[in-house]
This record gives sequence, C-alpha cells and structure tokens, in this order.
Amino acid sequence: MTEQQTSNEGKRPELGVAMVGHAFMGAVHSQAWRSVARFFDVPYRPRMVVLGGRDAGRAAQAAERMGWEEASTDWREIVERDDVDLVDICTPGDSHAEIAIAALEAGKHVLCEKPLANTVEEAERMVAAAERARERGVYSMVAFNYRRVPALALAKRLVAEGRLGELRHVRAVYLQDWLADADTPMTWRLRKEQAGSGALGDIGAHIIDAAQFVTGQTITGVSGLTETFVRQRPSDGGMENVTVDDCAMFLGRFSDGAVGSFEATRYALGRKNAMRLEVNGSKGSLAFDFESMNELWFHDGEEAPETGGFRRIVVTEPTHPYVGAWWPPGHVLGYEHTFTHEIADLLTAIGTGEQVEPSFADGLRVQRVLEAVENSAKNGSVYRQV
Amino acid sequence: MTEQQTSNEGKRPELGVAMVGHAFMGAVHSQAWRSVARFFDVPYRPRMVVLGGRDAGRAAQAAERMGWEEASTDWREIVERDDVDLVDICTPGDSHAEIAIAALEAGKHVLCEKPLANTVEEAERMVAAAERARERGVYSMVAFNYRRVPALALAKRLVAEGRLGELRHVRAVYLQDWLADADTPMTWRLRKEQAGSGALGDIGAHIIDAAQFVTGQTITGVSGLTETFVRQRPSDGGMENVTVDDCAMFLGRFSDGAVGSFEATRYALGRKNAMRLEVNGSKGSLAFDFESMNELWFHDGEEAPETGGFRRIVVTEPTHPYVGAWWPPGHVLGYEHTFTHEIADLLTAIGTGEQVEPSFADGLRVQRVLEAVENSAKNGSVYRQV
Amino acid sequence: MTEQQTSNEGKRPELGVAMVGHAFMGAVHSQAWRSVARFFDVPYRPRMVVLGGRDAGRAAQAAERMGWEEASTDWREIVERDDVDLVDICTPGDSHAEIAIAALEAGKHVLCEKPLANTVEEAERMVAAAERARERGVYSMVAFNYRRVPALALAKRLVAEGRLGELRHVRAVYLQDWLADADTPMTWRLRKEQAGSGALGDIGAHIIDAAQFVTGQTITGVSGLTETFVRQRPSDGGMENVTVDDCAMFLGRFSDGAVGSFEATRYALGRKNAMRLEVNGSKGSLAFDFESMNELWFHDGEEAPETGGFRRIVVTEPTHPYVGAWWPPGHVLGYEHTFTHEIADLLTAIGTGEQVEPSFADGLRVQRVLEAVENSAKNGSVYRQV
Amino acid sequence: MTEQQTSNEGKRPELGVAMVGHAFMGAVHSQAWRSVARFFDVPYRPRMVVLGGRDAGRAAQAAERMGWEEASTDWREIVERDDVDLVDICTPGDSHAEIAIAALEAGKHVLCEKPLANTVEEAERMVAAAERARERGVYSMVAFNYRRVPALALAKRLVAEGRLGELRHVRAVYLQDWLADADTPMTWRLRKEQAGSGALGDIGAHIIDAAQFVTGQTITGVSGLTETFVRQRPSDGGMENVTVDDCAMFLGRFSDGAVGSFEATRYALGRKNAMRLEVNGSKGSLAFDFESMNELWFHDGEEAPETGGFRRIVVTEPTHPYVGAWWPPGHVLGYEHTFTHEIADLLTAIGTGEQVEPSFADGLRVQRVLEAVENSAKNGSVYRQV
Repeated sequence: MTEQQTSNEGKRPELGVAMVGHAFMGAVHSQAWRSVARFFDVPYRPRMVVLGGRDAGRAAQAAERMGWEEASTDWREIVERDDVDLVDICTPGDSHAEIAIAALEAGKHVLCEKPLANTVEEAERMVAAAERARERGVYSMVAFNYRRVPALALAKRLVAEGRLGELRHVRAVYLQDWLADADTPMTWRLRKEQAGSGALGDIGAHIIDAAQFVTGQTITGVSGLTETFVRQRPSDGGMENVTVDDCAMFLGRFSDGAVGSFEATRYALGRKNAMRLEVNGSKGSLAFDFESMNELWFHDGEEAPETGGFRRIVVTEPTHPYVGAWWPPGHVLGYEHTFTHEIADLLTAIGTGEQVEPSFADGLRVQRVLEAVENSAKNGSVYRQV
Repeated sequence: MTEQQTSNEGKRPELGVAMVGHAFMGAVHSQAWRSVARFFDVPYRPRMVVLGGRDAGRAAQAAERMGWEEASTDWREIVERDDVDLVDICTPGDSHAEIAIAALEAGKHVLCEKPLANTVEEAERMVAAAERARERGVYSMVAFNYRRVPALALAKRLVAEGRLGELRHVRAVYLQDWLADADTPMTWRLRKEQAGSGALGDIGAHIIDAAQFVTGQTITGVSGLTETFVRQRPSDGGMENVTVDDCAMFLGRFSDGAVGSFEATRYALGRKNAMRLEVNGSKGSLAFDFESMNELWFHDGEEAPETGGFRRIVVTEPTHPYVGAWWPPGHVLGYEHTFTHEIADLLTAIGTGEQVEPSFADGLRVQRVLEAVENSAKNGSVYRQV
Repeated sequence: MTEQQTSNEGKRPELGVAMVGHAFMGAVHSQAWRSVARFFDVPYRPRMVVLGGRDAGRAAQAAERMGWEEASTDWREIVERDDVDLVDICTPGDSHAEIAIAALEAGKHVLCEKPLANTVEEAERMVAAAERARERGVYSMVAFNYRRVPALALAKRLVAEGRLGELRHVRAVYLQDWLADADTPMTWRLRKEQAGSGALGDIGAHIIDAAQFVTGQTITGVSGLTETFVRQRPSDGGMENVTVDDCAMFLGRFSDGAVGSFEATRYALGRKNAMRLEVNGSKGSLAFDFESMNELWFHDGEEAPETGGFRRIVVTEPTHPYVGAWWPPGHVLGYEHTFTHEIADLLTAIGTGEQVEPSFADGLRVQRVLEAVENSAKNGSVYRQV
Repeated sequence: MTEQQTSNEGKRPELGVAMVGHAFMGAVHSQAWRSVARFFDVPYRPRMVVLGGRDAGRAAQAAERMGWEEASTDWREIVERDDVDLVDICTPGDSHAEIAIAALEAGKHVLCEKPLANTVEEAERMVAAAERARERGVYSMVAFNYRRVPALALAKRLVAEGRLGELRHVRAVYLQDWLADADTPMTWRLRKEQAGSGALGDIGAHIIDAAQFVTGQTITGVSGLTETFVRQRPSDGGMENVTVDDCAMFLGRFSDGAVGSFEATRYALGRKNAMRLEVNGSKGSLAFDFESMNELWFHDGEEAPETGGFRRIVVTEPTHPYVGAWWPPGHVLGYEHTFTHEIADLLTAIGTGEQVEPSFADGLRVQRVLEAVENSAKNGSVYRQV
C-alpha cells in the first residue's frame, strides 16, 4: 500500500451496489466488494445496499453473512431503487439479458457474470442497451475475471509490447473433472434452457475471451466438435437427460494469422481448474495454467540459445499488474483477487467516465464464437466464419 | 459455504479487537479480521475497535483504509479499554513482550506476531504471563501463519495418521532475495536491537515452527553456521553497520530420531518466498514450496514401485483443511488466507475455552532453537542441546 | 544385466544387417545395432554388414565411423546380398516403398523409418508385400520409436490393465521450433515430393501412432486444419516455395468413444521436442512430455480425493518396460535407447517367428489418418472418416 | 556429427584398454568405451583388450557380453601387458590404491572410479604416483562423471563467465532411497572396510566434487552430522552390523566466501537419484536435479524484475557442452552419456599430453572433505578446516 494509494481516503463518495444471486459467484463478488477499497485507490467507496435472491429466508441469511445491508426477492424492485447505482448480476445465464437491460434502462451501471447470455440474440439486445446507456454515462462490464489474473494481464502486456513478435499458435484448454463420475447428479448447468450450453459456455467462454484478450486478435472462424459422454444423470429419484455438451473442442483462425486449438471439458479426471493458455510467436512464447495462477512461463526468443528457456515468472512483483496493491514478492494471490481487480477497474472506469473492458460487446464477440462452434459441430465440423 | 456454517448467523456475540502496528502484518491481519466471520462459522463476530500506531496521522489514515473504527497512538491505553477483548500485536519483535504481558494482565486475549520475542528471556516472561492468564480464561497465540497453509496442515495430518511411518529426514529452507543487492538500504530488520536476529528470526523461525508442527517432534539439538555477506548498508546518506545475520544454516536432531537441515536467507537471488519443507519417512515422503502454496507433494511408499511417485496434490478439495470454507476445487487460495484460518481457529478456541496452538510455549520453543543456533554458530558450530 | 539375460552368450547366431541412409536416423539406428545385444538377451547377434548411401566417399566415411563393415552406393545390390538378412531403411519417405518391397521380395526382414510412405497407395503396396513376405517367415516393422519410450510403454500397460477406465479424452501435440525463424533455409523436409507432407507426416505421424498405441483404439474420423506460415525459404541463393504444411491440427474420434485433439508444428518457439500426450479416462488420467522422457504422470481416480493427484513416476524401475536391461532407478535413459528397444523387440520377434508391432499395417493406419487430415483441411475442415 | 568430427577417420591409432571390475560401473564404462569414437573426434580408437574379474567364468561371460576381447582373473598381469595402454578401475574403493599405483608404475594411463580411495592416506599415495607418472607422460583421472552432465558443465561455464557474480550459497543434496526399507539385505556398500564410508563416500563424494567444480571454489571447512538409521541388516541367514553412515550432512564454507549445505542419504523415500545442486550469486542463480538431467534452471538477475524468473534451459542445443556430438535439440541424453563424455575428454587429453580434470589431486581434495566431515561428526559437529 503506497502513500499515493491512500491519498484520498475519506473523501471518496459512496456507490450503492445491488447484487442479484448469492451462490458461488455471489460469494466471490461479495468478498471483492468488501475488499476493493481497502487495497485499491478507487474513486468510490462501495456501499453494499441490497442482495437479491429467490427465497426470502436464504437471501436474508446470505446478506447477513456476505455483508449486504438488506435482502430482497424482487430484482425488478432492486434495479429501480434510488440508493442503487450499480447492479451486479450473478444469476444463471438465462436471466442475464432481462435483468441487465432493465438495470441499464433504469440508469444503473451493470456488472454481469459470464457468459453474457445464452444466445447471440440476447447478447445483441444487451449490447444495444449497453450502448444506449453509455451515451448517458452508464457503464457495463462482463465478468471475464481471468483477464485480471496478474499473470494473464502480464501476458497481454508482453504480447502488446511485441515481445512475442508475430503470433502463430494459440493452445487453450479449460479442464475440470467434476462430472467425470457418471453418478454425479443433475444440475442446472446440464440443462440447455438454463445454461445455454455445457462446458462450451461455462468454461469454454473463459478461454475464448482470454485468448482474444491476450493475443489482441479476434477469432474469425472455427471448426467444432462436441460430445456428451453421460447422457442421463440422477435427478429427483429418477434419471434426467443431459441436454448440453460435456466437452467442446474447436480449431480456429485469428484475425492476424495465428491458428488455435481449444478444448473445454469437465471430464479431465485429476484436473481441478486447469485453465491453460499457450501462445507461440516468432520472437517469444508464453504458457500459463491457472492451477499455478501466480506463475507465467515466458520464453524470450531473443536470448542466446545457450541460455534460452521458458522462465517461470512468479508474478508477484510490484511492477506486475495489480500486484502492487497487495503483498511483497512471493506472497501469492488467489482466485478471489481476480474479482477484486475486476471491480477496481470497473470503479475506476466509472469514475473517469470511460468504458471498461471486457464490455458487453466483448461478451457478444465470445457469444458469436460459441454459436459458430455449435453450428460447426452440428454440421460435420465444417469451418464457420464467426 | 454450507448450511451448517451459516446456521448461527445473527446470534454471534461481538468480540472487540484492537491491533497495534499497521505495516505489512497489520494490513494482512486486517483483511483476515474483516473476512473471518464471512467464511467461517466462528463463535464471535469481530468488531475492529481500534488501531494503534506511533504517528497519529498515519494511524488514522491506516484505520480508515483498513476498516478500524478509530486510531490511537497509545498502546497502553488500548490494552486497558473495556471495549477491547483481544489485542493483536503486529509490531517489531522488541516490543512484543511488553505489550503482550500488559494485555494479558489486563485480561485481554492476545495474538502476537512471530518471532514471539527477541530473546529467550523475554519469551519466558511472556509464557509465564500467558499461563497465568489462561487460568483466568484468557488465551494467547503466536502467529506462525504457515501452520494454516492448507497444504502444510494436510502434511501434518498425513504424518499424524502414520502415512510417513518413522521419520528420518527433514529438509527446510526459507529463501528470499530482497537483500541480494548490496545497495538495498538499511532497514530495522537489519538492526539486532530491533529485530533480534536477521534471517534466522525473521524467516528461520517460520521453518523451525513448521518443521516441528508437521513432524510432531521437537528439535533437540543443533549445529549452526551464520554469515553476514553485506556488512554495511546505505542509511541516511551514510553507511550503517548490519548487526544481524544475512543467512543462518543449521543441522539438527529431532526428538524421535529424525535428522534435519535448515537454511534461512534473504540472498537467494530469484527466490521470492520459497519456504520449502521436505520430510522423508520409512513409509512415505512429503515436499512443499510456498511459492506454489496450493500444492503438496506426497509419495506413498506403499504404492507398487511401478506406479509409485510423488503426487502433486492440489490442496483445494473440500476435505482439505480450511478449504471447505472457500471455493470449489482448483480455485486456489493465497497468502492472506493463512491469517484468516489462524484467526478462525483462535476465535473458535476462545469460544470453547481451549488453548489454541501455536501457543506462547510453542513460540518459546522456537526461540530456544534460535538461541541454540546462534550459540553454536558463535562457538565453532559445536552441537548444542536445545 | 541378469544371469538369465547372459545365459546364451556365445551361442547366438549372427543376423546380417544392411542399412540404407546414414543421416540423423542412420546414426541413431547404428548406435542401437551396436548396443542391442550388449543389453538385451536377443536371439541374434547383429552383424553390421553394409551401409548404403548415394555418395561413395561419404558412405565409406559414415560406415567407418558408425561401425559398418563396408559401404555401397547401390541399394538394389544390397538387398540382394546373401550375407544380408535384414534391411534397415533410413532414407526420406519417397524411397521407402521401392526399397522395402524389393527387400521383402528378396526375403529380407525390413525395418523402415516412419512415416511408412508418402502416400496411402504406396503404403498399401508395402503392406501387401509385407503380408506376402510374412507367409514366408519374413517380417517387417515401421520405426515408430516412441512406442519404446519406457514411459509410453508403461502408459499403454496402465490403459490395457483398465487403470484409466473408459477413455474420454486424448490430447496430443508434437512441438518443435526449428522453423520458427523465417530465415532458416530450405530443406528436403519442406518439399512435398520428397517429404510427402510437412509437420503432419514428420512429427504428426508420431503422435497419431502413439495415441493409437497407448489407447488401444483407432482414430475413426478427423476434422483438420493446416497452415503454412512461411511460404518461401532461402535456397541456393534464391528463394524456393515451401510446398508442405508448417503446422497441422485436427480433432478426431476414437473407435471406443474417446475424442481427441492433435497438433504438430515446428514453429512452437522454445519447445525443442515436446511430444506430449494426455489421456483422461473415467478412472484415471495420464500425461507425458518427451522433453522429460523418463517421467510419466499418472492420476489414479481410485485414490481418496484428500491425497489424490498426478504422480510423477520416474520410469526407471526394474519393473518398468525395457528398463531392467539398463541402470539402477533414477539413472535416466535418453532418446537413442528407444531405438535399441525397438530393435530388441524386432530381433526377438524374428527369433520366435512372430510379427512385431508396429507392423506395416500399423504404418498404413497412420497413413490413412494423415490423408484424411489433409483431405479435411482442403475441404473446409469437414469431418472425414478414416 | 560434423564434417570436422569425421575428418581423421581411419588414421587414428589404437589405444589398448583394460578394465578391472564388471558390475554396474563396468557395464557403463564398457558402453562408453564402445561408443566414444563413434561420436567424438578423439585421437585414439580404443581397443577393448581385456577385462579383469575375480571369477573366471563370470569374467569371461561379462567380457563376451560387454565387448572385451578376453578376460583375466589377475589384475597384476593385466596392468603389465604390453598391449594395454590404459587401465580403467571399476572395483570397490578398497582396491583402488593398489591397482592404480601398480598401473601407473607400469606406465599405464589410469581411469579410476570414485571415491578415489577409502582413506586420505591412500589417496595421497595415489596422487604421488600420479604425479610421478605424469612426468613420464602417463595420465590419470578420477571418474566423477557428473562433471560431464551437459547441464552441470554448462553451469560451470556460466559461473566462470561471471553470470552469477559473487557466489553466496550452495545447496547440494544427493537423495536415493534404496535403503529406506529396513529389510533390504546387507551389501558391501554398508561395510566400512570395503566402502570406506556409507552415503558420505558413495554419493556425498559426487556432490562435493560437483559443488567445487561448478563454483570453481574449494571447501575450506565443514561441520558434519551423520546418522545410521538401521544398525543391522539381514546377511546370510543372520544379521550383520552396518558399519557406515546411512546419511551424512554438513555445512561448510568455500574459499571465496560462499557458504553451503550438503546432504547425502539413501533413505529419501521416493527419490531415486536426486543429485541436486543450487547456487545463488549476487548476479544470478542456478538449480539442477539429476532426475531431470537434461535441464538446467538459470535465473539471470540482470533481467528486469517484470520478466525475471528461473529459466528451464533444455540442455540439448549444439552449443551446449558435449551435446553437438549427439542428436538434435530436445532429443535428450541419459546417464551413460556422461561416461562417454568423460572418456572422450580423457582420450583427448592423453593425445595432447595434458592432464585432464578431475585429476587424482581433485579426488584427494574430495577425500579430505570426506575425512573432515567424519571427524567433525565424531566430535560434536565442531567446525573442521579441510
């Protein structure tokens, strides 16, 4: 914590925040809202006004535990409240569009969990609402939190500085294993109407966004292949059909000539949260694995071959993105910090009147890739422009 | 977060906390005090009453930022306040004894940063005070936070369950590099009168405690060797003598027959916070490096040689110590979480009226090892009983 | 070396060997021919009769250095010699069919470097010749040496024993970087007429064969995408067109339900010979990287989650495939040993009158996959049955 | 293999080699003698004249298998033969002095396995003999083969070039586990009269030599601690006392100011051949583990902190020591290659009339350290000058 960072203590205006949804994402976001102004010199001090949830009792209990002043079961009421300036949407994807558009139209800034929506059509309406709102100084962000892993923010910086030269290869996988057991019961994440898609939208969306973020290029076309390994899961004493993909893989091309391969699965036994990204360029290469989130591997092709090799950068130096706000070198950060960084950037952008990234337009871009992958997979993997 | 964990929301009594010191340790402890009741089902809800610091302006600013209700420049006043139930000591080692004893005598629970004191004599007085207080239901803890790294708590569990068999080898190093540059200026950590010792007490204390914790054995004798590589450092325009060790190494024996080697240094260029521990037993082996704090490497000697090998356990499963309170598997934790775990255990122990570990007696045990190492090093490395 | 292994010393008949080609592959094969009977209890003692090469002077020099009795510039003469029992073909792919078929028809056993041929048509003719020869007790083998990496042979064993359960995912990449520099000059490996294809046939063939070998399944269909990053290379003072792929990627399905992704490239800056394979099943997972060729990573899903994790098996135990013939545990093997293992298996199979794997039919199976990938890549990545 | 390397094929004179001992070391040395002239442009072509062993039948069988022209049970006769120019001693340490001195006096070059001898007194007599012989153009070498691991030769080069600056820390361990099981039977390596010492001389000698080699400094004093965990082992139906150390640890100082810690054990369960070395200097750091023998980890302190980190150098580039003679980058080498390198250097030095390192004097230097460690360990670990 530097003097500069503490300079405007006490003068910061409050920003009223409402959050809808209080499961896993709600818990993480809450920790970030509680912490952000303790470590970052953001222009607002967030006030955690109200938490929305479907069940009154559970919402009240969650509000108490997570530090929200009150609870509500009516998101429509929440987004209209005068003491709310920002709405943070942590619900499943099928309600994102409705809540986000209502909030933006009510003049509230919006932070929306990913994927932005369950369909391209929904995402397009959200982008339109976001653009209208933006003209009125109301901003929005989609919560691709992996952009705020310090190692990935550093990766982007190195690419942007030209340290990798011309990019040729992207290799991105997101491997989990919580569905590997065929007896694991049904969840909403396996129903198409709620989740939109399976591994593709849940975790594939993250690596699509991360690859576009780090490379600074967009994916222009894809050839996809999906599979559902376990077609039925136990549910309420019976069996229920799984209506989404269990894994999704695709090959693709990027706007400046790189090619890439992608895979998202929740059946990679032994991999807990292996969100991995590799990039090879004409001058350098990068590798990352979220299970070791404080490390970035960088190969500088300009080194003499005699001493060249992938360096394990422990991304905890004060000069690394976001890290200066926290602890000394080697005192590693965790998953939740990525959300604190995300909210710090969002508050800063609101304060300066700028649109922060990833915007809803970035979210739509990911949505289009998801749709192209599904289309390709349904059509013999034939290549589809995004 | 489970239902069980949220069951007594709203009924928990407050516990008034005061903290003295607001540098690095103060910032980490504050985050832990703010977070603990959000994630752990502790019997008290901590109220962050007052922050002590030497400079009124800086203390006030820190209190504001870190979430303390008010600030004070008088630790004696703080420890007497009626609304304070617990005093958290985050100052350099030379003031630990005085503050801790005063607080304990005033009936306040005490959490004290490590090393417990700068000398064995001070530590002994602190233990005596702690034991007197304990009879009155007042508890104390020394903040060897590495015991609450989930991977090290798991390591201890595996040893205690007999998975390693009879222990033979301990290898413990704590490697940092922030003094590797001879031009880095003088700090209080390099003055014997303030810091007690150099790398030995600062980081060596951690690996001594961790080795005793994980093995469940005590170090019974040591042979030490210390060195000061850079004898003078820039200070206020001139040069000041460094009066502590730059590195400390020792060999030792444990109470049940294991032998060990230890090294603490702040000159291991490229190592940021490599607190490493290896243990070999007759039935299994363990290895840990804090730079990858979410991993424990375990070799089970009972496996067939054909498939035997060190396993990289990603210590983020719900069954792993402390982890169930946080995120799903693979969503890694960071340095600060160890303090939250520490405080959770402390609050729980206060609630149930038990003495938590590491106690001041544990701190004294470490202090005796530190003293024996220094004595041995001054006397031709000759073996010293602890 | 065990007593058993040395039991028939001195009684072993000679087997006359001829080798055609003396570049990289010729040097490795020669070392294997010189070493095999020193370490393995093979039924023949190879006699290194004659080395074939196009230039008389260079062939003679190579023969002297590599330990062949004489040299020849006429492979047709070589394959007819009475003192030659086996022909080892180490030339580029465009001459494999002609030499192998002639040798088989002359009654010589054949070891042929990979890929088996440059086209499916050639490979089919070679298989036909091999089958005819086999009826006469003449055997053939294609040199997919990675099957004889002890770690990959162990991987296959674990899969075959059911330790992985039902297979779901294969991830295979072969990453090199010797073409990453656009100024690297033209070589025969970049000319379609000599090499057949680029990275696809050169190194992609290895991972196709290895994936089929380890899984025990065949690839039934693919969707491919290829790219040539550097279209012209310096050659004889001018520039010459590169007529092969620089990288090849494909997605595919296996005969028993697994899905896989594959990538072969020589532009992955910083990766020297990263032939990597990952397999995930319902009960276990494996990971391998040739740059650490003595290690196999195995996750046993039957372990309790508390102590589960990928194990680093150092594949140097006497019970590991091929390893007992060499050194004690931890005394690692290198690249060349895979060829010694291959030849040991070939000699043993000849001795017992069995067809060894990989056979020419296995080579043809790989060739069909290569062709399907190229076809798919040329046709908008549309899925092709193999 | 370059043109230069093959230039004097056919003109090289023979050098008659005799080897005494044909167990593990004999098998490795034989492979090196067979291979050296195939890959290195050495001035002699070794002729493997005679193999010495105690049992006529087993020696003859070993000679046949390992490629020696004949066998003998009389080492005294061997070292006198006119057709023998060099004697390679692969026996246990208790016979090194007698054989080596006789061979040197007979005018034969000598390659002697490590440790040079079982006592300092023997080593001194060997050095005297070696120095007398040297005046007559007869050379000798002690077989610390780890100096010829390409990664460690590169490490030495980097230190010598000043890339590490002033050295501060050395950390060296040699961890094996083949004695971890208390039921493993007695062997000659556990008898003081044959082996001299236990882990100390067997594997500790290697890390002492390697540390002195890489740093270019000598160890000037030590404080030692040894332990025997299992005091009796099964032997011929009864139990026999183990008369050597099971593990040896020591702290030490180097001639130019570095400090170091050392540990040798054969009880580190799960570690197969973990010969590890770490060096930290004021400008850079190195780390090595023989279990990954083709990798050297190098941290260059001159890098910007933002991109600094330990680099994994895959030591298989043509510019790396010894590697150019073998395969392309990434096609890794194994344990046995270190012996081929050793013999290549020995032959080259004989050809040019220079004394090669490590000389017998280097072996004596190690022996003095071993003795000082034992002395210190027997005397309460008190520091001993070497």
